[in-house]
Amino acid sequence: MSVLLEFSITPLDKGESVSKYVSRSLDIIDKSGVDYCLGPMGTVLEGEWDEVMGVVKQCYERMKQDCARISCYMKLDFREGREEGLTSKIKSIEEKLGRKLKT
Amino acid sequence: MSVLLEFSITPLDKGESVSKYVSRSLDIIDKSGVDYCLGPMGTVLEGEWDEVMGVVKQCYERMKQDCARISCYMKLDFREGREEGLTSKIKSIEEKLGRKLKT
Amino acid sequence: MSVLLEFSITPLDKGESVSKYVSRSLDIIDKSGVDYCLGPMGTVLEGEWDEVMGVVKQCYERMKQDCARISCYMKLDFREGREEGLTSKIKSIEEKLGRKLKT
Amino acid sequence: MSVLLEFSITPLDKGESVSKYVSRSLDIIDKSGVDYCLGPMGTVLEGEWDEVMGVVKQCYERMKQDCARISCYMKLDFREGREEGLTSKIKSIEEKLGRKLKT
Repeated sequence: MSVLLEFSITPLDKGESVSKYVSRSLDIIDKSGVDYCLGPMGTVLEGEWDEVMGVVKQCYERMKQDCARISCYMKLDFREGREEGLTSKIKSIEEKLGRKLKT
Repeated sequence: MSVLLEFSITPLDKGESVSKYVSRSLDIIDKSGVDYCLGPMGTVLEGEWDEVMGVVKQCYERMKQDCARISCYMKLDFREGREEGLTSKIKSIEEKLGRKLKT
Repeated sequence: MSVLLEFSITPLDKGESVSKYVSRSLDIIDKSGVDYCLGPMGTVLEGEWDEVMGVVKQCYERMKQDCARISCYMKLDFREGREEGLTSKIKSIEEKLGRKLKT
Repeated sequence: MSVLLEFSITPLDKGESVSKYVSRSLDIIDKSGVDYCLGPMGTVLEGEWDEVMGVVKQCYERMKQDCARISCYMKLDFREGREEGLTSKIKSIEEKLGRKLKT
């Protein structure tokens, strides 16, 4: 699909441990049916604009229910006609270097 | 309004000078009626989620018409009950420091 | 100068109001001698890599003294031979559109 | 280690396919000895500030040699006393949800 969207969403008013809130987002993402990949600093979604933004909005709406301040970072990469961007981008780098990388 | 969204959207396939494309986005933003502030590295919109995301989507749809690869960065700050965040955040810092800063 | 760096640095363990911590960073930035511009969602520094990163590191080191968890976002735009990027980028957009924008 | 830094660095003046330039950065990262994890939208480094920033600077200096305009995005998460953040953050989410996620 043509859009890859990496995002992370975090409450500022819940102290230094936020994994409870991150888990709720991942539950929403995992059940959304949108293809994704969880990393140590965010989650990458793949789809079209409305699909991926719809998932982020669900996470935001859920967090607003009990968080008074929220930061959300999103980074989008659109490429016309791309297929399977979640895996193809990494493969392309590994092919160019001729070796496996840590993923 | 409770959402501040900073974003920038840039084509990757148009060479190093992208001000033509940035101008088109600013034209959309300026005519949208959503309150905003243009800075050297992005534009901050203030409103509710659907309003500010609607403006970003318009900029994205326009850019897709003639750009094959696009990067978009968004950073959102939600704070319950905030008013006039475009100006109040800077004022609050200046008050704490007791002097004017470069804005 | 060729590097524009926008950044924001925020503690996660101090509750929803973080302006005390943001003020300390702005005090460091303002006294650093590096040219900057404060906006509602971050500060843009202009200089060379070591200069601007040196300022960010000072803000980080200060925050580490009493914050147990810190988020920092940086967005860098390098353009060879650019002069006065803090003002020239906005001027260029306004010239293309033939009107003043909200800044 | 206490710092996780996700970053991506991209030339704007080389057209829509940038994997040649991304590969060069990954070669630098992979040979640096700093622990990392490559994802579809960026690479996460783990270490102390000077270590991880040193790697990013090397990638930037290499790219400057033949690129006239460069964008670099960095997102840093400092947490006092954290160990093995590249794996522990994901594990913590999976434990809370009681199931494996796509990584």
